[in-house]
Amino acid sequence: MTPQDPPTDGRRLRGERTRRTAARTAADIATTHGLESVTVGSLAAATGLSKSGILTVFGTREAILVAAVAEARRVYRERVVEPAWDAEPGRPRLEALLDSWVDHLRARVFPGGCFISATSAEFGHRDGPVADAVRRLKREWLDLLEADLAVAGSQSPAEDAFTIDALLVAGNVRRELFGSDLELERALALARRVVAATG
Amino acid sequence: MTPQDPPTDGRRLRGERTRRTAARTAADIATTHGLESVTVGSLAAATGLSKSGILTVFGTREAILVAAVAEARRVYRERVVEPAWDAEPGRPRLEALLDSWVDHLRARVFPGGCFISATSAEFGHRDGPVADAVRRLKREWLDLLEADLAVAGSQSPAEDAFTIDALLVAGNVRRELFGSDLELERALALARRVVAATG
Repeated sequence: MTPQDPPTDGRRLRGERTRRTAARTAADIATTHGLESVTVGSLAAATGLSKSGILTVFGTREAILVAAVAEARRVYRERVVEPAWDAEPGRPRLEALLDSWVDHLRARVFPGGCFISATSAEFGHRDGPVADAVRRLKREWLDLLEADLAVAGSQSPAEDAFTIDALLVAGNVRRELFGSDLELERALALARRVVAATG
Repeated sequence: MTPQDPPTDGRRLRGERTRRTAARTAADIATTHGLESVTVGSLAAATGLSKSGILTVFGTREAILVAAVAEARRVYRERVVEPAWDAEPGRPRLEALLDSWVDHLRARVFPGGCFISATSAEFGHRDGPVADAVRRLKREWLDLLEADLAVAGSQSPAEDAFTIDALLVAGNVRRELFGSDLELERALALARRVVAATG
């Protein structure tokens, strides 16, 4: 076989598995030790994959970090957005979104809490493809809240989205910092109050 | 001179200077690259101090990180708490605290924004002396807000402190992430509204 030959199905499947495992593990590590702490070596150690196997699939360390953000986005879609999507747009869907967001934290979908919260704090002042991916994911989440707040009749959807997101992030950070689920409950109660005050 | 001799004044002064410079630089780096990214080597490179000089003063890398939190606490005291301390307890002092907190961000006292916000997100899930120091500093700030909220007549000082801190942290994170001072202005306006609603 020459290098120009297309990969066999078996090779492609293995590559896909490596990609998914590495990206997901990198996303997990981002919530406990920071996305910047992810290296090809630490990822190989955490997954049991070989360093050369990881590099064959991704090419660069930066591509791994970008893939981690994409994988986290997929997880949010599946665990937070989709469970709320059948609810009526506006207040009911906002309430469902708050519930599914808190559920994904309670279920420790990511071991260190909220991926968006962790990476937004970590990559704030940085440039480049990883920071851009983090920025887009955060903006997408805020836009999602803002759209339903507008439907719900909020007089200032951007401010209300700012406040709800601020409360949820604070609940996440303090739950991790002080080791108490009460911080999360408090954030949820305060965010629900913002939703209830719309319209 | 034997090792038992007390250091001369010159040596002591040099040690103090090294301690302050290293701790302050580590606190700065914490806001741009994370406190965990600080190593004896990176600190020597950033300060021009020698690695052996830094290790003579601190003994361990962990002691440097704990000293960075203590130095950041001193900076908050000087730049945020003290300028507000002459204001009347309660609502006037809360307003002054919000102003001085925002001022210290505008002045880029730490290059990457708020030290407490950055380290609280970074050390949430961790144990040990550094995480404990971060935890104490965050708690101290929340207690400060809560005490004045109680004086101001807030019906739920803990919830109001939670909300104000959440808004400020969100303003800091988003200002860094989206590169816009408007995020900080929005946070300040929303936090002022919480203060105004007390009593």
